[in-house]
Amino acid sequence: MEKSLDGLSINLATVRRQWSFAEAVDGCLRHGITTICPWRDQIADTGLKEAERIVRSNGLKLTGVCRGGFFPAADAEGRARALDDNRHAVDEAATLGADCLVMVVGGLAPGSRDLGDARAQVTDGLAALMPHARAAGVPIAIEPLHPMYAADRACVNTLGQALDICEAIGGGGIGAAIDVYHLWWEPGLEEQIARAGRMGAILAHHVCDWLVPTKDLLNDRGMMGDGVIDLAGFRGMIEAAGFHGAQEVEIFSDHWWSRPGDEVLATCIERFRANC
Amino acid sequence: MEKSLDGLSINLATVRRQWSFAEAVDGCLRHGITTICPWRDQIADTGLKEAERIVRSNGLKLTGVCRGGFFPAADAEGRARALDDNRHAVDEAATLGADCLVMVVGGLAPGSRDLGDARAQVTDGLAALMPHARAAGVPIAIEPLHPMYAADRACVNTLGQALDICEAIGGGGIGAAIDVYHLWWEPGLEEQIARAGRMGAILAHHVCDWLVPTKDLLNDRGMMGDGVIDLAGFRGMIEAAGFHGAQEVEIFSDHWWSRPGDEVLATCIERFRANC
Repeated sequence: MEKSLDGLSINLATVRRQWSFAEAVDGCLRHGITTICPWRDQIADTGLKEAERIVRSNGLKLTGVCRGGFFPAADAEGRARALDDNRHAVDEAATLGADCLVMVVGGLAPGSRDLGDARAQVTDGLAALMPHARAAGVPIAIEPLHPMYAADRACVNTLGQALDICEAIGGGGIGAAIDVYHLWWEPGLEEQIARAGRMGAILAHHVCDWLVPTKDLLNDRGMMGDGVIDLAGFRGMIEAAGFHGAQEVEIFSDHWWSRPGDEVLATCIERFRANC
Repeated sequence: MEKSLDGLSINLATVRRQWSFAEAVDGCLRHGITTICPWRDQIADTGLKEAERIVRSNGLKLTGVCRGGFFPAADAEGRARALDDNRHAVDEAATLGADCLVMVVGGLAPGSRDLGDARAQVTDGLAALMPHARAAGVPIAIEPLHPMYAADRACVNTLGQALDICEAIGGGGIGAAIDVYHLWWEPGLEEQIARAGRMGAILAHHVCDWLVPTKDLLNDRGMMGDGVIDLAGFRGMIEAAGFHGAQEVEIFSDHWWSRPGDEVLATCIERFRANC
């Protein structure tokens, strides 16, 4: 029996160079996909009201909205600006009825070499955001990014670290987005996924693949099956921990961005069924 | 008072495109540097006997020999070959009187997606090597590599993981080479460095810097001071843990390999004094 496409979500970054938000939704619907995760710039280009209309009129399910975060700043004014922007991101996720707001937390503050300070600013920023997120009913999903992004994108780099932050903040409504690309190498990963399950903290499961060789730090992520990640084994750990939500395909790739959007979606479906 | 060059070692990979082993030694001596870490291909090109003569006649100190490792293999024959090669590496390090043999442990076995198996093969391979290493009096230094090398170079990616392996093997004579480039992002780093100190397991301290942006996964490492790593803070943690050996400059960089070797060494000295 073929796997139902109910278990597949398309992160719209995967086709961001080919299509606008509306075009991407049309593409997904043509392929029988009704679960997506849009980015805020795509929503802004379309307009939030029109994006909401498209989502509701087509009965789309959103595994998340990408992305809030980027908390560390050089001064109090920068931190206040980041918090304000994150509140807007929460509101957008609430308007669209998304399962969570994904957080790329940010790296070092500008001009800083103090990673400990950046990490403290992230915890403080998330804690400050949580009352607004809880009031809006939007779960906050910290996405640990691969350590190669620690300086400039996210200073939260392991699932263990993300869960420590969730525990430090407490009160619920905050968890993790688990992306195979960022975490497949993490020592003790299975234990951390089980821990996340016990905490009720698995909010999303993102998939792509790690290519060998990887030619670019940012835009050389692989289609599932083209790399070395044991995707089925990874999924097994996540399901064993009690998460059965859709697998969200998020591929930053100059190669796949150069292909027709319909080819990309057809390949995502084929590989989701064969490899995930 | 200027920092003495006794605290500075040059890993000869830093000038490997400019100079042979003998030329690199001459270059170091011209700049007052008497501590180095050669690579096995450089030793092989020179011949082990001639390399030994150069080392002894100049009173050179070796912070290590790079590198053994690459344990995971597809079958028993491959594992036996790797073990045999590692015994030869131990013998070379013993002949040259090096402080340690640095281990880049290897990534996934060819064709495998089983990272757990690769990690088990590394521990098994190191355990099998230890009797020979202990008999030769050569400390084995596991070098955890950045997670972006987990697939193809080293499946040991944190200091914590390396120390776990040292404890699992037991019996002493095995520790870690701590490279700021690979570990600067590790959550709980300070605790792990302190733990390594208590275990007597800090065998080497490698320095360079993490550039933002990093343009290449392999050959875009930075000169100390050009990136975002808090090198002085890192050194403080290592000295607090009881290690006072030389800082070994190891820079894989298309940029620095394109500069004259004397300019590279002069810059290493200047930055060692200013930033480390």
